[in-house]
Amino acid sequence: MATPVKVHGPPLSTAVSRVLACLIEKDVPFQLIPVNMAKGEHKSPDFLKIQPFGQVPAFQDEATSLFESRAICRYICEKYPEKGNKGLYGTNPLAKASIDQWVEAEGQSFNPPSSVLVFQLAFAPRMKLKQDPSLISQNEAKLEKVLDVYDKRLGESRFLAGDDFSLADLSHLPNAHYLVNAAERGELFTSKKNVERWWGEISSRDSWKKVVDMQKQAT
Amino acid sequence: MATPVKVHGPPLSTAVSRVLACLIEKDVPFQLIPVNMAKGEHKSPDFLKIQPFGQVPAFQDEATSLFESRAICRYICEKYPEKGNKGLYGTNPLAKASIDQWVEAEGQSFNPPSSVLVFQLAFAPRMKLKQDPSLISQNEAKLEKVLDVYDKRLGESRFLAGDDFSLADLSHLPNAHYLVNAAERGELFTSKKNVERWWGEISSRDSWKKVVDMQKQAT
Ligand SMILES: N[C@@H](CCC(=O)N[C@@H](CS)C(=O)NCC(=O)O)C(=O)O
Ligand SMILES: N[C@@H](CCC(=O)N[C@@H](CS)C(=O)NCC(=O)O)C(=O)O
Repeated sequence: MATPVKVHGPPLSTAVSRVLACLIEKDVPFQLIPVNMAKGEHKSPDFLKIQPFGQVPAFQDEATSLFESRAICRYICEKYPEKGNKGLYGTNPLAKASIDQWVEAEGQSFNPPSSVLVFQLAFAPRMKLKQDPSLISQNEAKLEKVLDVYDKRLGESRFLAGDDFSLADLSHLPNAHYLVNAAERGELFTSKKNVERWWGEISSRDSWKKVVDMQKQAT
Repeated sequence: MATPVKVHGPPLSTAVSRVLACLIEKDVPFQLIPVNMAKGEHKSPDFLKIQPFGQVPAFQDEATSLFESRAICRYICEKYPEKGNKGLYGTNPLAKASIDQWVEAEGQSFNPPSSVLVFQLAFAPRMKLKQDPSLISQNEAKLEKVLDVYDKRLGESRFLAGDDFSLADLSHLPNAHYLVNAAERGELFTSKKNVERWWGEISSRDSWKKVVDMQKQAT
């Protein structure tokens, strides 16, 4: 652990901040390498060598180079089982399978409508781009349905994959944070009793507060 | 292994057939439980207990119940490391991380445009639903870009995650099969030298041929 691992990309990116939250939970030292997206650095030949789709984040350690935020998070948990939050990716195969299932639900069901809403409601206005009202209402309806499933689940267990905070919950933080704090869509979360309790609990973790501080410093 | 594992859902579903291909590669006996989607059985209270989003597949074995096709595939590989294709999810942590990264790329980059195209071009006409030409052309353009990245990658290594066929390649079979064989979009694959070679190789695996036979029997 002499050399810290490297994360390429701005902390304001949801996919970058997912990896940062994981590294902080796992207490793994890291170095953040800026990528100036306004200048298109993520499409430069050098960057495409470590992230062929031209997106952030990219991750490097002494052993490997990886992209895809959720795959990076799994790798960090597998590589450092004894560091920081030891249960972040479960401590037995069944717990791990349940976490994995809800990380997939985040990537497949929660992320698509959330990321459209975050872009339309939080980023488009800042970038002086026109919003698309029908896209917004379609994706609000989709997200509402997903959160209904979550509300039921979170009525049965404290966190998505069971009794403990895990990668499954963590993976939701970046988009949920913007929906609540930059897109005026807090009501999607607070209107559902169990989702509201869950969101209060996961968003007040020290690891996530540190990521939010890094995001504030970046603006 | 006295009781075979159970997969709920029709083999014609792309997400179901991903799990079937994995089970056959791993030589794990399974029982297929029909879910009549035309009759809305996937939205019935009993089915929602094992798949809360009301989608197929759902998976059960003596130890657990799971949903999300890619999470189910990972679980099968972790649970039966010594059965069938032993390298399907890698045999060391670095190989596994690379496979995981490309499974994520499939789920995040390849699947979204592919599944829109499969629905619009293959299923909508059979269901007598109107096609949306602008949605089709948008998603063709997106998929084309993704496959350009794949073509470059497959110029450097025989399979997506390295020298061996893995879960990363397998995960692409269901949508790619329909794009080539039911949506007249074979050219997306055959127009790129390395993608064409890869598609020829992965689609002719015995495991996948067995899944295609199951699909044919279902129609
Ligand atoms: N599935 C990828 C998504 C990465 C992604 O979409 N990154 C965005 C920023 S949050 C990006 O780089 N966008 C620029 C682009 O796509 O050109 C991951 O989770 O790492
Ligand atoms: N991310 C899920 C997707 C499952 C999915 O979309 N299944 C489709 C069939 S391929 C389905 O059940 N559609 C019916 C519906 O969504 O109501 C997985 O990979 O298991």
